[in-house]
Amino acid sequence: MSTPSSVADVGEHALIALIRERVPPAPAWLAVGPGDDAAVLEPERNRLEVVTTDALVEGVHFDRAFTPPGAIGHRALAASLSDLAAMGASPRSALLSFVLPPALALADFTAMVDGFLALARGHGVALIGGNITRSPGPIVVDVTAMGTVRRRRMLVRSGAEPGDEVWVSGAIGAAAAGLDALAAGLAEGGDMAGCGAAFLDPQPRVKLGVLLGRNRAASACVDLSDGLADGVHQLAAASGAGIEIDGGALPVPPPAAAWFASRGRDALTAAITGGDDYELLFTVRPKLRSRFRTVRRQVGGLALTKIGTVRREAGAVLLRGGMAEPVPSGYIHFR
Amino acid sequence: MSTPSSVADVGEHALIALIRERVPPAPAWLAVGPGDDAAVLEPERNRLEVVTTDALVEGVHFDRAFTPPGAIGHRALAASLSDLAAMGASPRSALLSFVLPPALALADFTAMVDGFLALARGHGVALIGGNITRSPGPIVVDVTAMGTVRRRRMLVRSGAEPGDEVWVSGAIGAAAAGLDALAAGLAEGGDMAGCGAAFLDPQPRVKLGVLLGRNRAASACVDLSDGLADGVHQLAAASGAGIEIDGGALPVPPPAAAWFASRGRDALTAAITGGDDYELLFTVRPKLRSRFRTVRRQVGGLALTKIGTVRREAGAVLLRGGMAEPVPSGYIHFR
Repeated sequence: MSTPSSVADVGEHALIALIRERVPPAPAWLAVGPGDDAAVLEPERNRLEVVTTDALVEGVHFDRAFTPPGAIGHRALAASLSDLAAMGASPRSALLSFVLPPALALADFTAMVDGFLALARGHGVALIGGNITRSPGPIVVDVTAMGTVRRRRMLVRSGAEPGDEVWVSGAIGAAAAGLDALAAGLAEGGDMAGCGAAFLDPQPRVKLGVLLGRNRAASACVDLSDGLADGVHQLAAASGAGIEIDGGALPVPPPAAAWFASRGRDALTAAITGGDDYELLFTVRPKLRSRFRTVRRQVGGLALTKIGTVRREAGAVLLRGGMAEPVPSGYIHFR
Repeated sequence: MSTPSSVADVGEHALIALIRERVPPAPAWLAVGPGDDAAVLEPERNRLEVVTTDALVEGVHFDRAFTPPGAIGHRALAASLSDLAAMGASPRSALLSFVLPPALALADFTAMVDGFLALARGHGVALIGGNITRSPGPIVVDVTAMGTVRRRRMLVRSGAEPGDEVWVSGAIGAAAAGLDALAAGLAEGGDMAGCGAAFLDPQPRVKLGVLLGRNRAASACVDLSDGLADGVHQLAAASGAGIEIDGGALPVPPPAAAWFASRGRDALTAAITGGDDYELLFTVRPKLRSRFRTVRRQVGGLALTKIGTVRREAGAVLLRGGMAEPVPSGYIHFR
């Protein structure tokens, strides 16, 4: 008899057991963990609960030809942690829901779980429950993440006012260029390795989000999982204001810009309309700049770049070479 | 120009707008509702948080040939509310995550949402967030539901002791027979209409679960979404005890029993191994029977049936015609 090799060979209960033996001991606030009908948590005193859900679908968000299973698990959690970070929340727990083709290799399943759990461990996130279902279709990984935040430290999209500065963390367009290079088989080593890693191994800006909230240093915040262009539009619309972006200030890594140019694309447009940048876009009120300086000291080596200004007139404008053009509408999921 | 007819024709933002215009005004405890990066909730004082997630996959849990879209939305929420009920929790909020083929008719999408929201309204559940993703594969509806419960009113699977009575709500096997009859095109009107409705329109036992918890009337509880056989095994194993079921006492509706028999199947085995019974299986300590009488008075017309006893010896046994046989292992998702 050969050893089990697909998820169908071992069945649902054994898959759940494989997850549970990988999960570290439950935190004290978890009154009932995996194994009952539902998980039961003790709320944190004087905190609001923050909750978000996100799904990764094979063939839409990742291609198994060049996305290792560990990266799938990592990215599924990163998307939700990035949403919590944009609210200033400290992540605490997550639910992991798999929809799996029966022929999926068991080793790929455990690697997805391990990728998820490694990122969870790094942020002190407890896996408290989930679900496993077979499917005749592609892999779907659906993650619900929960965190907590004090009411006065919460960040929302709607607080920007004319005159506020617009800032962004990290790099823009690296993940989109990396995805492109991975698909072309050109992201191993060399110039594009960093961009490939930006797609496969994104680091949600949990610490930055928490610090911006704790220091009350940002007037508004949004995450850039659908790209900078989309984030700019969302933040502007929610705040009832407009945003002017300085194209020359955008932190597009040179290898990403060169990659887009070599493919005949306008580098700036490609960088801001590509998705998968798990960065934070946030606004800083000039008179509260000292609070922001505190955040910059505390956040460590993470690059933070001023890229524009909030203005009264609605809409989003990109300045380049002295000319103003509308910011494109960003990544559209369904077209 | 023709009117939009598929979800791809209108795009993700319009689908989200369609959901939001259907959602009733937000409750006061919802600090940030749909539209930001995450939802923000005020916890209920002196309550634990209870959270569960469940997915319905087209071709596995439902077949669109005989499952109307409204029933898909209803069933997706019912599964999670049944899990909360098994913990004695009052449901409060839910996240709704869709994975959709682009060709899905827009009218089917809105009907799924309406089916979800109708059941949510009936139980005072607020839709606080979610996600929509396109997919090359089948429809997946993933629901995370959250509720609250006082610590001492929480129900778990592990509290049964030898001598406790085993009870079940409602009917067993009706949904499985109904699914079979629906697939055969024989559930419209006539004897099997009730079974068809048990599959398409299951009523999670929220009130019963809350009353069992509030009156501290049950020593253990589990929901039967994977069928009675699975529930009996789960409750027995979690409690470190065994369970003896009286086959003659099981509330299998006569049309369901007749349906299984007409298909050449053993009716009792088919009824307890079929899934989709969103009923509660719970244990009652004989000396606390007066608390249970209070629950029976308060729960109204719902049938509650004593079907067995907890015993010291591990395992689950089915008695019929004076003979004991092992309870089969229940519905296996992956084989």
